[in-house]
Amino acid sequence: MKLVIANKTYSSWSLRPWLLLTELGIPFEEVLIPFGQTFDDPEWKRAISAFTPTGKVPALLDGEIQVWESLAIMDRIADLRPDLPVWPREPAARAMARSIAAEMHAGFSALRGACPMNIARQFHPRDRGAKVAADVARITAIWREARARFGESGPFLFGAFGAADAMFAPVGARFTGYGIALDPVSATYVEAVQATRGYQSWRMAALAEPWIIDEDEVDEPVLEEFRPHLSRSKA
Amino acid sequence: MKLVIANKTYSSWSLRPWLLLTELGIPFEEVLIPFGQTFDDPEWKRAISAFTPTGKVPALLDGEIQVWESLAIMDRIADLRPDLPVWPREPAARAMARSIAAEMHAGFSALRGACPMNIARQFHPRDRGAKVAADVARITAIWREARARFGESGPFLFGAFGAADAMFAPVGARFTGYGIALDPVSATYVEAVQATRGYQSWRMAALAEPWIIDEDEVDEPVLEEFRPHLSRSKA
Ligand SMILES: N[C@@H](CCC(=O)N[C@@H](CS)C(=O)NCC(=O)O)C(=O)O
Ligand SMILES: N[C@@H](CCC(=O)N[C@@H](CS)C(=O)NCC(=O)O)C(=O)O
Repeated sequence: MKLVIANKTYSSWSLRPWLLLTELGIPFEEVLIPFGQTFDDPEWKRAISAFTPTGKVPALLDGEIQVWESLAIMDRIADLRPDLPVWPREPAARAMARSIAAEMHAGFSALRGACPMNIARQFHPRDRGAKVAADVARITAIWREARARFGESGPFLFGAFGAADAMFAPVGARFTGYGIALDPVSATYVEAVQATRGYQSWRMAALAEPWIIDEDEVDEPVLEEFRPHLSRSKA
Repeated sequence: MKLVIANKTYSSWSLRPWLLLTELGIPFEEVLIPFGQTFDDPEWKRAISAFTPTGKVPALLDGEIQVWESLAIMDRIADLRPDLPVWPREPAARAMARSIAAEMHAGFSALRGACPMNIARQFHPRDRGAKVAADVARITAIWREARARFGESGPFLFGAFGAADAMFAPVGARFTGYGIALDPVSATYVEAVQATRGYQSWRMAALAEPWIIDEDEVDEPVLEEFRPHLSRSKA
């Protein structure tokens, strides 16, 4: 099974299924195709289109079977491994997990636009406008509700780590990276996700990446030395 | 089981699960809450928030269980009725159905923005720009591929009517309503969807709706008399 992804620093959608597979202990081969200097770089598009008809990452290749879109990849993983808690089994928890994963899949565009995932850097907190604040409020309300209603058996939204946690992991990365203040329940939850071995190893690999994508660098980082190498073009 | 929706003329997301439930013959109670004059009308938001935490339709209420987001509602239906072909069973078909449904759930924003669903009216064909054309090209490529690889047993994407067809039904409505030219395979497929009893009865109800939402009226209709009643405010 091959998972095709892009830069670990920036590719929030890639992180989602990568983290799910890694945390569930499902073996896979990682194929990382670094972005060009712009997101619609034709060379990158050409390279990626060997694996997916959308020209976007992530994509999963499982023998003859091709799956694209982060959420569909998670559903494929759930089909392959019904023994694992990709989605909760209890109907009310399962309905909520699916609803919030779909909400993340299509939503929160203000936050995603204003604070592109940039997992290797730390930025200064600042006001990012009412729409971003509304997205943060909704996301943390989701987390508090899931933790309160369904999170008893573990530190994640529905207890054990699953697809819903994977879907929200890049949002947690934004909250910490852009210094967005969180309520205690949400802060503890983000810490739990970021303490997983999967998240840690993704982030370590991101820190070692040499590529900078200008359009995703929206602020001055707290420490310019935060990244081991900086370059303006593909290494 | 209650399905909460908005105006049949305009609410493309509402159409998706409504059509799936209807075509599968699953009984449900329809709760239609007409939009206010703007999509973020506070009164409408208040009415809707009794049913869903996102303030958006559709939402499904199944006893204690609340589901929101069109795609999550379809997954709930699949869980409730494993005997029905909500998603295809064969793994390659299933993977493609899930991938394209997720692609629709998050994508095609150029088409969605330029051609809001307006199922009661017919517009003149005109050039709608390169981004819309790219969305149309991708959507029809998806349809041709699904029909060629998996559509043998019936007129729909994977043979029998399922979640993938429901996800794309509003796009078909845009193609016919805005006079967007289609290849023969796609045109035949759209005809099959629009010939279903579910689609026909949704559209008939839309034609009888008195409400006009100005921000979704982007063109002059071919016939001003196309709608039985026109009014600028809620009836
Ligand atoms: N809805 C898609 C989004 C995928 C996506 O936008 N991926 C980005 C990278 S994080 C991408 O490939 N961008 C390149 C492009 O759009 O050209 C999913 O869930 O997988
Ligand atoms: N991703 C959501 C989209 C739902 C959505 O945007 N619904 C529209 C009506 S078609 C809505 O409720 N708009 C009102 C608003 O956003 O205030 C889904 O799949 O259900």
